[in-house]
This record gives sequence, C-alpha cells and structure tokens, in this order.
Amino acid sequence: MSRADAERSASLLKAVADPVRLRLVSAIRATEAGEACVCDLTDLVGLAQPTVSHHLKVLTDAGLLERERRGSWAWYRLVPERLAEVRGILA
Amino acid sequence: MSRADAERSASLLKAVADPVRLRLVSAIRATEAGEACVCDLTDLVGLAQPTVSHHLKVLTDAGLLERERRGSWAWYRLVPERLAEVRGILA
Repeated sequence: MSRADAERSASLLKAVADPVRLRLVSAIRATEAGEACVCDLTDLVGLAQPTVSHHLKVLTDAGLLERERRGSWAWYRLVPERLAEVRGILA
Repeated sequence: MSRADAERSASLLKAVADPVRLRLVSAIRATEAGEACVCDLTDLVGLAQPTVSHHLKVLTDAGLLERERRGSWAWYRLVPERLAEVRGILA
C-alpha cells in the first residue's frame, strides 16, 4: 500500500471511527425509505441538532452520505459504494 | 446500534484509521509466511523501530494482530476474524 493510498484510506476510516457517526449510519440504514432528516436523527441518537449536524457534515464531506435539501430540511442517504470502499480497505 | 456497541466498534475502527497502521497491516498480509518481525517492518514502512513498535502495540491491543516472541524478536500476524469484524461493522 502506497503512502498516498494509506493517507486516503485512513481519513475515510476516521470519518466512521466515531460512536455517534456509526449510530447515525446505522439509523439511516434502518429507515424504510433509506433516508432521514436531521429532525428524525436527533431523536434517534438523543443529541442536540447542532451536534448531529456536525457529524452528518463529517460523513457527507467523506462521501459516505448524500445530502438533499427539500423544503426546510436536509435529507441524508447512504452512499453504498463508499461504504463498500471502506470495507474494501481491509478486505 | 446500541451506544455500547457503537463505542466498541468505533474504538476498533480507530485502531486501523491511521496511515502507518494500514501500511503495517498491508505489509504483514503481503508476506509469504503471513507474519513479520519489527526488524522487517521498519524497512517496509521506512520508520524508526520505536515508532513501528508503538503502532504494532495499538493493533495488538485492539486484537487485530497476534504477537509471538521467538529469540530476540517479536513476530506479528493478522487475526483474520478481527479484521472481518471491522468490515462487518459497515456491512
């Protein structure tokens, strides 16, 4: 593994190596529609909206979530290819 | 995902979410015998022995590597079940 590949893979792993972010990924995956808004997620993880928004931003910046604004809320869904990439690092 | 499961999974992911540790895992996996000593790994990753030993300890403490002392050197091999567990977190 090259130094550059290792840097890239480590930053992707760091994005998910957090208990709140793992619970957010798990909560979004568990939804019937495969997507959730911040309004739903604050209840699910029991944290304030700014905290949840911060963690959603880290996941979105890493390409693990896609964000779509509809009305007054942003909706988030998983990017399965990117999650598969994280698993592939250790395959 | 419960809070306790998330804490446990996050700490396992953190152990591998580091570029040097990813390169060490990759280097050990690439060996023919499936194991390597610190003496080999310092050359492979181009870092000093104390640095390499520190990262090997983090991986061993997380259960991702097994350590066996033979003669003057410690030898390290991967624990495939534990790597599979890391992948499973995001499956």
